[in-house]
Amino acid sequence: MKARPILGVTMGDAAGAGPEIAVKALTLPGIREVSRPIVIGDAGVFRQAARIVGSDAPVKSIASLDEASFDDGIIEVLDLHNVDVNRLAYAKIDAMTGNAAYECVAKAVELALAGKIGAIVTSALHKEALNLAGHHFAGHTEILAHLCGGRRVTMLLVAGSFRVSHVSTHVSLREAIERAKKDRIVEVAKLTHDAVRKMGVEHPRIAVAGLNPHSGEGGLFGNEEMLEITPAVEAAKSQGMDVVGPIPPDTVFFRMKQGQYDAVVAMYHDQGHIPTKVLAFDQGVNVTLGLPIIRTSVDHGTVFGKAGKGTARPDSMIEALKLAAKMASTP
Amino acid sequence: MKARPILGVTMGDAAGAGPEIAVKALTLPGIREVSRPIVIGDAGVFRQAARIVGSDAPVKSIASLDEASFDDGIIEVLDLHNVDVNRLAYAKIDAMTGNAAYECVAKAVELALAGKIGAIVTSALHKEALNLAGHHFAGHTEILAHLCGGRRVTMLLVAGSFRVSHVSTHVSLREAIERAKKDRIVEVAKLTHDAVRKMGVEHPRIAVAGLNPHSGEGGLFGNEEMLEITPAVEAAKSQGMDVVGPIPPDTVFFRMKQGQYDAVVAMYHDQGHIPTKVLAFDQGVNVTLGLPIIRTSVDHGTVFGKAGKGTARPDSMIEALKLAAKMASTP
Repeated sequence: MKARPILGVTMGDAAGAGPEIAVKALTLPGIREVSRPIVIGDAGVFRQAARIVGSDAPVKSIASLDEASFDDGIIEVLDLHNVDVNRLAYAKIDAMTGNAAYECVAKAVELALAGKIGAIVTSALHKEALNLAGHHFAGHTEILAHLCGGRRVTMLLVAGSFRVSHVSTHVSLREAIERAKKDRIVEVAKLTHDAVRKMGVEHPRIAVAGLNPHSGEGGLFGNEEMLEITPAVEAAKSQGMDVVGPIPPDTVFFRMKQGQYDAVVAMYHDQGHIPTKVLAFDQGVNVTLGLPIIRTSVDHGTVFGKAGKGTARPDSMIEALKLAAKMASTP
Repeated sequence: MKARPILGVTMGDAAGAGPEIAVKALTLPGIREVSRPIVIGDAGVFRQAARIVGSDAPVKSIASLDEASFDDGIIEVLDLHNVDVNRLAYAKIDAMTGNAAYECVAKAVELALAGKIGAIVTSALHKEALNLAGHHFAGHTEILAHLCGGRRVTMLLVAGSFRVSHVSTHVSLREAIERAKKDRIVEVAKLTHDAVRKMGVEHPRIAVAGLNPHSGEGGLFGNEEMLEITPAVEAAKSQGMDVVGPIPPDTVFFRMKQGQYDAVVAMYHDQGHIPTKVLAFDQGVNVTLGLPIIRTSVDHGTVFGKAGKGTARPDSMIEALKLAAKMASTP
């Protein structure tokens, strides 16, 4: 049996509730049973977060992974000393916390690429704070793709056995239609297939959604199904994957909810995000596919509204940790 | 207190499970308490359906509404004598049943326009059978718009207090983007407002969804929010409606589920259909807005797979009947 994988948990934006959420999640026995988590961030921020949530767990600052004891009940922080806690203001957009959040991700990627940690689990960062600090990225996914050498990535949302990957994400709906091309759909199907296998499903059953209402009703309302999606499904099948489609967009997610598929390939951001979020708002996990490393993330923002109050729920972080542990320990 | 409204329940395609579903729903006390339902169809088909579902309710053929007794426990059929039961084959696409389904809708519209029934509740018809019989329509909505004099209609899906109307429906996603224009959005908001009031919500809180991911993220991923949707929301507000938006598409439906809105105006078919169907597949109600008459419908197809077996569930029909009764008795 493989040793519990080391998970690098990034601090996220320290002005948000991320550190409090991480403290709550990391002290749960269920997490320690399957993984050895290490925080990558500022130890002072986590000491304050532990006080706020009323945790007894000591926060220990370490300078390198070699110093980690992985003892239960201790929160070990690979300390980047990048936040001045005296200057930290909750719910404030600040270049200091934006920059610190970026540094944590960069450090985590470095460790993962070097094989020193098994997976990265990211807390939420704040896009404006990030940009204020001079890091001009739309979000985590773009940072990760950049740090890993310009990969073609995609986003998989996971809520239990409800899994949705996306042919495109942060582009206009007009542009999303242009991006729903055969080769890209096959690529996303393959990334999805491989990721779902890593989640423990040996023979993933994948459905590819249509783009148009009723999958175009035989060409009556759009022809992307005939020109791009059906050929993509055929190509994916010929590569040995268990793929069906195009399935009408307003039916495919219900069928997955009923257990008929292990994942759906969505044609655009909202096609996949709408059903996932209506079923599991703020409780899902976001997984980046296409990187040479494993990365899961909370599926919510910085929760500025609850920062410093100790009331933010750790559900999504708990799921992100468990999923990262599962993926990192599946060959 | 207003008398219980008369509801005209159409037979739908007799080769499907519609008549069985109607028999199950119409004999429930909850339906009779709020309405006086009359079937518009072929009495022979309903006698057979009653036998199949094991109902004791006598099926009575009447030639005109004046003959109706509205007695509890009797299924009264305004008999169009338009199906030869000896020739009726379940799950078969047949011009006979396609034509009969059309005639039932036409008769129901005639009675509703004349004020003789308070609302129409439609069972599912089969598009191919309809076309085989020479009635070239995409579906019910198009027939109804035509019979009522070419109205600009829209579809409202209702599942309890989850209500979604659509700026466009059966068009390609490309075309749907072109149709998301200010005037149309205001029109659909007004139709939605009026319909939700008729459903008993005195001051409907309506959210208008964005078109692009994150509602375009300030123009970064599309500008339809700035050019069309925001001006539409302002115009609707200036008409006295309680309207907010654009709200990010992946958030607005969850918020409605939590009770924050009474209805959402969706920008395209799947934006509204995906969340409704993932939450309430085959249990919702479809309401046509923009007609001079009230029309609700089951939100499922002809259920050919269960036709003649007595096993199809009447959930959606029950909700469609109750909603029609509510709308027809609200001034």
